[in-house]
Amino acid sequence: MSEFKTVRGMRDFLPQDARTLRYVEAKTREVAELYGYREIVTPVVESYELLTAKAGDEIRSRMFTFKDLGKRQVALRPEFTASIARIVATTLRNEPKPFRLFCAGSVYRYDEPQKGRYREFWQSDYEIVGSNSAEADVEIILLTHRLMRAVGLWRFAFKIGHIGVLRGILSQEGLDEKVQNSVMQLMDKKRYEDAFDLLTDGGISKRAADVLRSLIEIKGNSPFETVEKIEACVKGYEKSAEAAANLRKILRLVVDSGCNIDITVDAGFARGLEYYTGLIFEVYVPEMGTALGGGGRYDRLIELFGGEPTPATGVAHGLDRIMLALQGERADTQTLKRAVTIIPLKEELRSEALRISEMLRNAGTPVEIEVMGRKIAKALEDADRRGVSHVVIVGERELKENAVVVRNLAKREQVVVKIEKLAKALMD
Amino acid sequence: MSEFKTVRGMRDFLPQDARTLRYVEAKTREVAELYGYREIVTPVVESYELLTAKAGDEIRSRMFTFKDLGKRQVALRPEFTASIARIVATTLRNEPKPFRLFCAGSVYRYDEPQKGRYREFWQSDYEIVGSNSAEADVEIILLTHRLMRAVGLWRFAFKIGHIGVLRGILSQEGLDEKVQNSVMQLMDKKRYEDAFDLLTDGGISKRAADVLRSLIEIKGNSPFETVEKIEACVKGYEKSAEAAANLRKILRLVVDSGCNIDITVDAGFARGLEYYTGLIFEVYVPEMGTALGGGGRYDRLIELFGGEPTPATGVAHGLDRIMLALQGERADTQTLKRAVTIIPLKEELRSEALRISEMLRNAGTPVEIEVMGRKIAKALEDADRRGVSHVVIVGERELKENAVVVRNLAKREQVVVKIEKLAKALMD
Repeated sequence: MSEFKTVRGMRDFLPQDARTLRYVEAKTREVAELYGYREIVTPVVESYELLTAKAGDEIRSRMFTFKDLGKRQVALRPEFTASIARIVATTLRNEPKPFRLFCAGSVYRYDEPQKGRYREFWQSDYEIVGSNSAEADVEIILLTHRLMRAVGLWRFAFKIGHIGVLRGILSQEGLDEKVQNSVMQLMDKKRYEDAFDLLTDGGISKRAADVLRSLIEIKGNSPFETVEKIEACVKGYEKSAEAAANLRKILRLVVDSGCNIDITVDAGFARGLEYYTGLIFEVYVPEMGTALGGGGRYDRLIELFGGEPTPATGVAHGLDRIMLALQGERADTQTLKRAVTIIPLKEELRSEALRISEMLRNAGTPVEIEVMGRKIAKALEDADRRGVSHVVIVGERELKENAVVVRNLAKREQVVVKIEKLAKALMD
Repeated sequence: MSEFKTVRGMRDFLPQDARTLRYVEAKTREVAELYGYREIVTPVVESYELLTAKAGDEIRSRMFTFKDLGKRQVALRPEFTASIARIVATTLRNEPKPFRLFCAGSVYRYDEPQKGRYREFWQSDYEIVGSNSAEADVEIILLTHRLMRAVGLWRFAFKIGHIGVLRGILSQEGLDEKVQNSVMQLMDKKRYEDAFDLLTDGGISKRAADVLRSLIEIKGNSPFETVEKIEACVKGYEKSAEAAANLRKILRLVVDSGCNIDITVDAGFARGLEYYTGLIFEVYVPEMGTALGGGGRYDRLIELFGGEPTPATGVAHGLDRIMLALQGERADTQTLKRAVTIIPLKEELRSEALRISEMLRNAGTPVEIEVMGRKIAKALEDADRRGVSHVVIVGERELKENAVVVRNLAKREQVVVKIEKLAKALMD
């Protein structure tokens, strides 16, 4: 047996999975086009400094990082946003705003491998740069909704929140930003008690701690009711109140869009990445605990990367997780094309078989040619096994009449067809 | 200005280039389908051991290699063939032969960056596994020819050779395989004198050296004439003679296929990768010195990777180089879609604008929505600058009649259109 295998955490997509991956990827591109997002392709290898600048400790510790032959500290991208922010801050610096950018490709995180989680995985990413309006945030939600539908998912739900609700209180309490980041990461993991320990150590007031505790327990019968409760809860915390009002506005526009989106508001919602400043959201399917996608607003990142202060909002989707969800849905991602195999009856007819196969491909018909030099019975058997629909048999007798035999494997019928009519005959 | 930039040798594809890259990639996939190649997706990160097993010293020294957090020596793939051979030797070990596999993605080599050459570049790769027939080799050439045509190239030419012609003589002379590899690499670089020095040190006979010198100088008026001269030249070297006969057979089938391929036979042709055992070829456009693609037969690689002895032949194409060649051809890779922007006349109409934009997208029309809250004149000016063809203006007055204003920016005309007829109106 071979001593070679994939590196731990890495995987191959065999033909069926590869087809599903490319199908999902094609859908992400279609959605990008529908919403006016222009694709860019960024390198897998970026500077370590760029990727760690605002990623959060957790991602930072799980990066594939190394020195290249020129002694540069580089890393494999763990996500796309840093690369896009770099481009916005440099190459596209003087481009009139707003602009919409789209990426799709592989990203890398050194996580513990488990079902559906690999160290190389696939994302699509949409970013709208230069707008601070609620519509921009809503657009990111709507296009996520459309992508889910486009790939074939029907039972999915959004969770939304606003980073400003929690951060507004922490800031007003004068909490150091680093401590804020740690608190948000603990909240993201629902480790509330650890978060509150940290807050107490950080010296926040009893009143603020009480407000935070109430916040994370808020439940409403509708998203609007939840937002109302949040607004009532954060009274007196100006920034938090603004955040809640922004959340209400976004929610209103989502509902008015007519998209009929299943949405829940979560006041205690936080996300692992440090760079968010406004709306945050994730999309889920019922049977999976992990989100299929998520994103939010990050109004300070581009400035941090040396660009002009530029508001931005975006979303990333996990293509692997979408693929897993599709398995649950038994969605039909495999468009079967008619497969044709062409078999010359003897060696001297190989050139003729090649010529005919090229003619068929010119007409857009996918063709495989027999390359094993097998006898017809053996070759037919193999074609049958592979689910080939039609076999074209090139024989001397028919060739004299400029014809070949077409065998329909499913029906077990065969007819003689003139070569000039072959392409059309195979389409029927 | 931003301190962040791409790592040396890496690059971003901005929207126009990204579109061309994805266009070329889509064509490689179409060709795969036409010839019955099933796509697989392999990881960028592979074990160093796998990638270096049979890559050749030159590629070996130019790899991005490092230890992952689990102390595994890994590297970024410099090509696809090793990964495919690994899968054939393991996962697909018991799959009935032949099978055809296709890959497309980024590969990594630490070369000195120059125009059109980056350290991350893009390849498509086609491999046919399990057939030792000349048709399999021919198929690889034909599909390369078809890919060139499919992307929009018309002036390109093939150079073909056979690794067995040179190796046959070296083996019969008893030359150590390692020395053979070094000689082939020097030949590949046209460093013939260095190659002959090495041969003399290796102790090959004067007669063999003379034959080799004659070989590399062979020129014919036609590919068949060249092959005849090769056959005459290598008489007495059994393996070389077999190789020349195989080359003739391949050439015959290519010509008979009716594809009208511009082809030159080069007796002194070698390729940098060590694993070739039979046909080798490259495809060129006149104005570029580097090949757009190349490949050949490698009948021992899968065995080397622990699989059953399995003949195989394949080709890789450089998508970046194809893109460069397309610039020379001024090929039209940019299919412009009608772009529509939708602008609400005032804030209260934003929901309505969102609703209409979603309705248009449902009908397949790409739409951008105004997210800057700009006045209509400013927004129109921006739409014009971006080459938008139609603007949909959502105003209170028209909305009362369930209508909107459609402005044709090119014609500077506008009409009032009922919302229910809007999608159709924008298609006309």
